Amino acid sequence: MRETWVVGAASNRFGKMSETGREAATRVSLQAIRQAGLGPKDIGYTFVANAFGISEHQAHVGPLINNGLGIPDVPSVTLESACSSSSAALHEAFVQVAGGFIDAALVVGAEKLSHMDTLSATSYFAIAADYAFETKNGATFPGLYATLASAYRQAFPTKDEMFGAIAVKNHANAARNPHAHFQKEISMATYLASPMIATPLRLYDCCPFSDGAAAVVVAAKEVMKSPVTEPLVVRASARSGSVTDMQDRPDLLGLPATRTAAAKAFRQAKMEPKDIDFLEVHDCFTIAEVLALEDLGFFPKGSAASAAQEGTTTRDGSLPVNSSGGLKAKGHPVSATGASQVVEIFEQVNGLAKGREVPKTETALAHNVGATGGSCSVHIFARR
Amino acid sequence: MRETWVVGAASNRFGKMSETGREAATRVSLQAIRQAGLGPKDIGYTFVANAFGISEHQAHVGPLINNGLGIPDVPSVTLESACSSSSAALHEAFVQVAGGFIDAALVVGAEKLSHMDTLSATSYFAIAADYAFETKNGATFPGLYATLASAYRQAFPTKDEMFGAIAVKNHANAARNPHAHFQKEISMATYLASPMIATPLRLYDCCPFSDGAAAVVVAAKEVMKSPVTEPLVVRASARSGSVTDMQDRPDLLGLPATRTAAAKAFRQAKMEPKDIDFLEVHDCFTIAEVLALEDLGFFPKGSAASAAQEGTTTRDGSLPVNSSGGLKAKGHPVSATGASQVVEIFEQVNGLAKGREVPKTETALAHNVGATGGSCSVHIFARR
Repeated sequence: MRETWVVGAASNRFGKMSETGREAATRVSLQAIRQAGLGPKDIGYTFVANAFGISEHQAHVGPLINNGLGIPDVPSVTLESACSSSSAALHEAFVQVAGGFIDAALVVGAEKLSHMDTLSATSYFAIAADYAFETKNGATFPGLYATLASAYRQAFPTKDEMFGAIAVKNHANAARNPHAHFQKEISMATYLASPMIATPLRLYDCCPFSDGAAAVVVAAKEVMKSPVTEPLVVRASARSGSVTDMQDRPDLLGLPATRTAAAKAFRQAKMEPKDIDFLEVHDCFTIAEVLALEDLGFFPKGSAASAAQEGTTTRDGSLPVNSSGGLKAKGHPVSATGASQVVEIFEQVNGLAKGREVPKTETALAHNVGATGGSCSVHIFARR
Repeated sequence: MRETWVVGAASNRFGKMSETGREAATRVSLQAIRQAGLGPKDIGYTFVANAFGISEHQAHVGPLINNGLGIPDVPSVTLESACSSSSAALHEAFVQVAGGFIDAALVVGAEKLSHMDTLSATSYFAIAADYAFETKNGATFPGLYATLASAYRQAFPTKDEMFGAIAVKNHANAARNPHAHFQKEISMATYLASPMIATPLRLYDCCPFSDGAAAVVVAAKEVMKSPVTEPLVVRASARSGSVTDMQDRPDLLGLPATRTAAAKAFRQAKMEPKDIDFLEVHDCFTIAEVLALEDLGFFPKGSAASAAQEGTTTRDGSLPVNSSGGLKAKGHPVSATGASQVVEIFEQVNGLAKGREVPKTETALAHNVGATGGSCSVHIFARR
C-alpha cells in the first residue's frame, strides 16, 4: 500500500450559490488542483458527491466536471452515502491511490438546494432516512436527532447551557472562517431565546440548509516529487455501517457506526484518541457533536456535553473541535460536508486558517456521518 | 494486485416489480451470496447502484440492504454513473478486492420506475444528459441516439433490415432468458411495421423502461478455498469518460469513451478482440450495438451494422453478442444493467444459460455505457 497524501483542498463560501452545483464543483476542483501544484491532466479519476443533483435536473455530473476541467477521458463516478457522501468518495480515492491503481484523484462534493422551498429541501434531506419505517411515518432529521438528544438528557444530567456552549463555540469559529455560511458569533442569551424546533433542540442546535462545494486532491507520495503544500498523510480511511433505524438499536446513547469506524481507523493509524491534536466532527445538531466525541473515544460516555462549556473543545482548548465552525455554523451542503472537513484540516496544517488557528496541528481526525448513523467515515491525518 | 473473481451472480426477472428497489436488491444480493457458497458475513463492502431511488423516496439504500442481509456494520456506498452505474460499482469492488483492502464485495444494482408515468420516467432518464445544453433544450435519449443513427446511416450504406436483424436477434435471445423483460421473439415484418419513435429509430430499435435488480459477488482468489461455482477471473476492469455533449465531438460515428475504455481493458488483460468468445454490449438502441462492436475493435468502422443479419453475432455465430437479449429485449433497469451483463456471462460460463448457450465460453467482455457515452466501463473475464 502506497503512502497517500492530501495535497490540495479548496472550498467556496457556503450559504447560497448563484451558480449551479456543477459549476461550483468545477471551480473548487480547479482551485484544489492548482493549489496542489498540479494540473487537471495529473488527475486519474474523479470521485464526485452530489446527492441532490436531481433537484437541478442533473445526474452523471462527473463527466461534465471533467469536461470543464479539460480532461474528458478521465473516468468519474458519483458516490452517495447521505451526509457522508464526500467522505465515502474520499475513501474510494484513497483506495485507488494507495492501491496503486491511479496516481492522483480528485474528490469533489457539491450541493445546491437554495432554489427549492424549505419544505422541498426538508423532503430531500428526509430521503436519507428509511422511507418505509421512518420518513413515511413523518420522521425528519430534526425529529430523529431530537429523539437522540432526549435519550441523552434522560440518561445523563445535562443543562441547556452545555448544548448552548457548543453552538456558541461553533459560531465563534465560523465567524473567523471565510468559507462559513454564518460568519457571526452568537451569545448564550441568543441561543437560549431561540425557538424550539423539535424538543429539546432549539433553532441554534440545528445546522442550516446550505449550498456549497469543496474539493480535495489525493496523490501518492511517490508521485509528488516536490510538493508545494504541506501535505496531509492519510493515516487511516475507515468506514462503517450500522443498524439503520433507531427503534432497532439496543440504546440511543451514541451512534454505533461511529464506534466501529473509529475502532477501524485508530487500528489502521496505530494511534489512540490521545494522539489527535484537533478534529472536525459531524455536528448536524449540537447533540451530534456530543455523541461523536464520546463514540470516537475522546470522552467517557455521558461526559462530553460539558466539554465546550468547560473550554476543552474551544479553539484554544486542549482538544479543539470544529475550528471551521462545523456543520452547525459553517453550514451543511450535504455532499460537500465531508470534503470541507478535510479543507479545514488542510488549511490549519498549511497556516491558511488565519484568525482561527488551533495550537497543535501534527495530527487531526475527520468524522462524517450519513443520516442518523447508517453510515460513518473516519479519516485520520498527520503531517509527514 | 490479487487475482479477483466473480463468484456469484443473480438477477430477478426484469419488467415490472411489485416490491421496492430496496427489497429486490436485498433479495438478489442474498441469492448471489448463497450461490457463491458464502454467507453475508463474508462481505466486506457493499457497492450499490440505484440512480433513481429518489423516485421511491429512498437514498442511502446501502445500509438498508446490509441491514436486510444481517450485516449492519458493513460499510456501503451508492454509485451513480448514469446507465453504467453498476459497472462503475463493479470497478470499485474490483479495486478494493484486488488491492487487498477487503476480501469480498457485494455489487448490487436495482431500479424501479414502473410506479411513475411514462413522461416522468423519461424525465428521470433525461437527467443523465447535460441539463444546461441538452435536456433544457428538449433532448431526450431516443432523440440523441437517433442523431447518432442518422450520422451513421449518412456515412455508411445501411438498410433498415440490418438494424431490424439486431432487434430480431436480441428478442430471440431474450425469449430464452428467464430474467428478460420481453420473453418473445419478433419477426422482421413486426420490426419494419413498428412506428417511428425518433427517425430513424423505430419502436423495436429502442430498449424499454424496466424495473429490475441484479447482484454480483466479487472475491479474492486467495480467500475462495473451494469455490462452488466456476468463477469468472476479472482480467480487466477499465473505465473512461469522454467529451459529453455530442455537438462538441469531432464526429458522431462512435462513442469515444468506448474506444478509450476498450484500449485500457485489452491492455490490462493482455488480450485482443480476437481473444474474446462472446460479449454483452450496451444496446440501449440498436445503433448502440453497432457502435459498440466497432468502437470495441471487433469490426472495422462502418461494417458492424450487417453483423446480425449475416449471422456473425447470433447465438450460434462466431461472435455471439447479447445472448441475454441485451438492454433491447432483456430490458434496461438503469442501475441493474451493468451487473446483469455479468450475470449473463456468469450463467453462460456455469452452464446456467439453458436454451441460449453460446458455443465457446472461455473469455467474455461486458460493455456498459453511461448516457451517450460520457462514461463507459469495459470488463473482460476469463475462466480460471
